[in-house]
Amino acid sequence: MEKGELLYEGKAKKIFRTNDDQLFYVSYKDSATAFNGEKKATISGKGRLNNEISSLLFSKLKEAGVNNHFEKRLSETDQLVRKVSIVPLEVVVRNVIAGSLAKRIGLEEGTALEQPIVEFYYKNDDLGDPLITEDHIAVLKAADPGQIKEMKQAALKVNEVLISHFTDCGIRLIDFKLEFGLTEEGTLLLADEISPDTCRLWDEKTNQKFDKDVFRRDLGSLTEAYEEILTRLGGNDACTK
Amino acid sequence: MEKGELLYEGKAKKIFRTNDDQLFYVSYKDSATAFNGEKKATISGKGRLNNEISSLLFSKLKEAGVNNHFEKRLSETDQLVRKVSIVPLEVVVRNVIAGSLAKRIGLEEGTALEQPIVEFYYKNDDLGDPLITEDHIAVLKAADPGQIKEMKQAALKVNEVLISHFTDCGIRLIDFKLEFGLTEEGTLLLADEISPDTCRLWDEKTNQKFDKDVFRRDLGSLTEAYEEILTRLGGNDACTK
Ligand SMILES: Nc1ncnc2c1ncn2[C@@H]1O[C@H](COP(=O)(O)OP(=O)(O)OP(=O)(O)O)[C@@H](O)[C@H]1O
Ligand SMILES: Nc1ncnc2c1ncn2[C@@H]1O[C@H](COP(=O)(O)OP(=O)(O)OP(=O)(O)O)[C@@H](O)[C@H]1O
Ligand SMILES: [Mg+2]
Ligand SMILES: [Mg+2]
Repeated sequence: MEKGELLYEGKAKKIFRTNDDQLFYVSYKDSATAFNGEKKATISGKGRLNNEISSLLFSKLKEAGVNNHFEKRLSETDQLVRKVSIVPLEVVVRNVIAGSLAKRIGLEEGTALEQPIVEFYYKNDDLGDPLITEDHIAVLKAADPGQIKEMKQAALKVNEVLISHFTDCGIRLIDFKLEFGLTEEGTLLLADEISPDTCRLWDEKTNQKFDKDVFRRDLGSLTEAYEEILTRLGGNDACTK
Repeated sequence: MEKGELLYEGKAKKIFRTNDDQLFYVSYKDSATAFNGEKKATISGKGRLNNEISSLLFSKLKEAGVNNHFEKRLSETDQLVRKVSIVPLEVVVRNVIAGSLAKRIGLEEGTALEQPIVEFYYKNDDLGDPLITEDHIAVLKAADPGQIKEMKQAALKVNEVLISHFTDCGIRLIDFKLEFGLTEEGTLLLADEISPDTCRLWDEKTNQKFDKDVFRRDLGSLTEAYEEILTRLGGNDACTK
């Protein structure tokens, strides 16, 4: 598979064309950003870790019947994905109160929710990715009601599948962010990445954080944390719960 | 009706007990505040205007079958209302994009919505009255699903009734905020106030603002604007469209 023209360089990944016009070549970068790009660093090894973890999780999701953009891992930092037109929404699933939700509603980080909840944020850096309602999604014409329903259902299914895998490895899945896109035929596909950059992952016993909060809150070595996730998921070795 | 002990002094009103333990005596104050209390002023005559306008609108809503807390106007600045336990939500109905919604989703103030939308904000000054979703309402136990549905339906009915009255007076109802409460028997009642402090009201022809944005944005005399609303609603004279 040939790596063609660079189409987009984001904060975490580069997207290249390939010789198949339905497939993109994705390179995971060694950069970490937080707070809408205000905090930045280059972290050697991060690209490899996120590529490995994301490839592994998208494969497991495909096995579990969740349609997604992942085609194959190409190298330590690269993967092949199906091209989609990204729906401008960040779909967040939460099992435990943390981060911006703790701030928004004033409940303590770590409080378990009785049921998982799904939130939509408008993917717009200039506006700071605001929380929006389903009515706002309609006003913005970001998705139609059928797509909203499909994304919610898929997000909850992803949650079930990921909880099962992470639980087996002694990890609590606190929350995570998904992106969806539309293929040229109009099929909705789970896309982007699922990694410790986009999930909150806490040790089952100690609540130690193995996710981007290590970077956001200066809690230690980010690559050690991500390496721990990859190892526990069986990406380096077997699950070492 | 006797004015008893002062129970609560808010930014815009004082609530007193009466000799009937199911009724409250409400005094509208001559104070204006905006931006969660950061901007403040004393504006002579404002209390009277909001009491007159709110009394008039709650009466019209009662006639139209919308159950609400209003019992009767007692004096220029005072009214008698049914005591409720306020649901800690601000229920906002929007017909046209303005204010915080324009900022949130990046669409221009003045853009008409195809359909009215209803939003819920968590009534919590310390948190800055954040926008929340129905899932958050459940997490906060602020209202149950039946009550959410009832508040939405009532809010849209209020919108219909108010649009009809304001249209007759050459006013566009852009958006407004409602509060609901529960009686001791558990009945949901529309409560608080409906006034130019809690609505956006624009002249049909010129889009001149006759609401609290005059104060927020320093657009001229607040009492002249509110007086115009009261007059057009027929509170001083007949409707003078
Ligand atoms: N299968 C796909 N097809 C097309 N675009 C994709 C696909 N998967 C992910 N993307 C998009 O590619 C970009 C990945 O880059 P990266 O994650 O670094 O972006 P970012 O810095 O998070 O910025 P933003 O997400 O705001 O564009 C994102 O815009 C993402 O939405
Ligand atoms: N029928 C009612 N029974 C009990 N409380 C009511 C009723 N109607 C309104 N209230 C409450 O009385 C208070 C009115 O005061 P005011 O509008 O000045 O408050 P505020 O400064 O807006 O503060 P806040 O609304 O945050 O308490 C509000 O708290 C309102 O929710
Ligand atoms: Mg991204
Ligand atoms: Mg008030």
